[in-house]
Amino acid sequence: MTRLNRQYRLAARPVGLPKNTDWKFTTEQVADPGDGQVLVKVLQLSLDPAMRGWMNEGRSYIPPVGIGEVMRAGGVGKVIASKNLQFPVGDHVSGGFGIQEYCLVDGKDLGRTGLAKLDLRLGTLSQWLNALGMPGMTGYFGLLEVGTPKAGDTVVVSGAAGAVGQTVGQVAKIKGCRVVGIAGGKAKCDFVVRDLHFDACIDYKGGSVRDGLKEHCAKGVDIYFDNVGGEILDAVLARINRGARIVICGAISQYNNTTPVKGPANYLSLLINRARMEGMVVFDYADRYALAVKDIAQWMKDGKFVSKEDVVTGIENFPDTLNKLFSGENFGKLVLKVAEE
Amino acid sequence: MTRLNRQYRLAARPVGLPKNTDWKFTTEQVADPGDGQVLVKVLQLSLDPAMRGWMNEGRSYIPPVGIGEVMRAGGVGKVIASKNLQFPVGDHVSGGFGIQEYCLVDGKDLGRTGLAKLDLRLGTLSQWLNALGMPGMTGYFGLLEVGTPKAGDTVVVSGAAGAVGQTVGQVAKIKGCRVVGIAGGKAKCDFVVRDLHFDACIDYKGGSVRDGLKEHCAKGVDIYFDNVGGEILDAVLARINRGARIVICGAISQYNNTTPVKGPANYLSLLINRARMEGMVVFDYADRYALAVKDIAQWMKDGKFVSKEDVVTGIENFPDTLNKLFSGENFGKLVLKVAEE
Repeated sequence: MTRLNRQYRLAARPVGLPKNTDWKFTTEQVADPGDGQVLVKVLQLSLDPAMRGWMNEGRSYIPPVGIGEVMRAGGVGKVIASKNLQFPVGDHVSGGFGIQEYCLVDGKDLGRTGLAKLDLRLGTLSQWLNALGMPGMTGYFGLLEVGTPKAGDTVVVSGAAGAVGQTVGQVAKIKGCRVVGIAGGKAKCDFVVRDLHFDACIDYKGGSVRDGLKEHCAKGVDIYFDNVGGEILDAVLARINRGARIVICGAISQYNNTTPVKGPANYLSLLINRARMEGMVVFDYADRYALAVKDIAQWMKDGKFVSKEDVVTGIENFPDTLNKLFSGENFGKLVLKVAEE
Repeated sequence: MTRLNRQYRLAARPVGLPKNTDWKFTTEQVADPGDGQVLVKVLQLSLDPAMRGWMNEGRSYIPPVGIGEVMRAGGVGKVIASKNLQFPVGDHVSGGFGIQEYCLVDGKDLGRTGLAKLDLRLGTLSQWLNALGMPGMTGYFGLLEVGTPKAGDTVVVSGAAGAVGQTVGQVAKIKGCRVVGIAGGKAKCDFVVRDLHFDACIDYKGGSVRDGLKEHCAKGVDIYFDNVGGEILDAVLARINRGARIVICGAISQYNNTTPVKGPANYLSLLINRARMEGMVVFDYADRYALAVKDIAQWMKDGKFVSKEDVVTGIENFPDTLNKLFSGENFGKLVLKVAEE
């Protein structure tokens, strides 16, 4: 059976915000699986700020996407043809499928692609890209392992309505912390307080983050989970407590810079406060993902944890949809729906 | 007996490098000690980069020196009159005496001043301001407690010929690390390699620090002990290994800035490398100073550890001598000798 596979390939390394000409939309035939191979029909794809970094040349925690290669992306799908007994037809799976409609996974690439079965009793396909997927794992391990919260700590998280931010804040609440979000716009801030039960949320588009921190973190900041960098990181550095932990998870404000990254001018607050700033990459916790999935699925079942997605339909909308991340237009975990089951 | 006490008082908060007009040189009579008081003849004073920070208004790890107050400084001296049985006449002591020739220490201020007896069998007066004093304690605990070195680690330290830097590097060598210093000028670099036995020293005035790091840290950097901040911090960030530790001890390149501090533009290297940057303040380790003094004194006795001081004589030379720290003119721990015994 001949299937056509539409794919977004990286055509050029973007300068600043990715443009349409940085992509090439291609179509190719899908081969049938050979021995050990698995053919996955991609259903939903995860769009993440980190993708912007993968488009750049240079040393990072994983190699950049090569020019002409299918753009790297995590996704969920269904096995539709298989010559691998581990993954029979009908299985729901997640993996690094890339921005395409079908992904032929080779047996020896299983590890690299991270092909894993999904239990849809624990969550929907979209939730497997969010609370039960990479963002959930990132927020869970970043907060608990690097942030090391204690009950009563004041935890601040930027990108609070985003995929990682919502996990960080909700896990921190469950651990007995006071949680203050930072997000852009009244609608997001209302959602963060009303639906995610943060104690407060500062609207960085609607006023001064410094004033908001002063108001809502009267006892200072013990943990800051940073997804944004830039001015907001500096504003929080000015309010940290002695022994504070700053988790560096991302810096979305800086990813499309055409000028050098703005380093945190207030970093000497680390010295004054004997505080630390530490980076994290979710892959380091892969051997414990199952543990986090179990916790979060249980919290969702108990109604203590909300997984909010922003689903856009149609692979052809990929370039514009990705850029919603950088304008802050997305509301919850950004998911590109490629196909119905 | 009437004694005249010459003192340097803070006259104005400096903008940039301290000027002569930021100081007031005053003379007053010294009172005889009352009950519980101790009169110390100041012999030598410690001049430290941190003093620049104490001259600024604003929140820090200790309150700023007030306008009109005697400038804060650590020193060593001798008890010449006493109504306190703990500190009889003739004792050698260290404490926060300030830039003056005599210091009358009140019994209830003993804790605040940190008055402590010195055992001159362990080191000379100057060494008690260096390897056995605050710089030694800072380097010892900063490296061992915050840097957490393992044998085989590559340790980089800036201000390598300075008081803290020399301790850091020598302790790291004793712990089995490869040690690369960064210092200004050939003479200092030669001293660091020849006398302090570092594996290499990069002359930041004589060439590119980036190239030097590339050459001398072929396996990357596991620990960076930062005394300087600025461009050098960024250069090292670009070379750190996974799990690296950056100890933020100071930022002398930024202390006289009249523009905002330059934050480390390469801080996202912390993320890529799951590394941490952590601040330290020596006072936190006060309950364990005796332990470090014992180790360092033994190493000096065994010929494994050099304590190098740069001694300038005459209290009237204080303003110019302090500024040597910021031009990098001092060579070893900068000591102002105020009097002979």
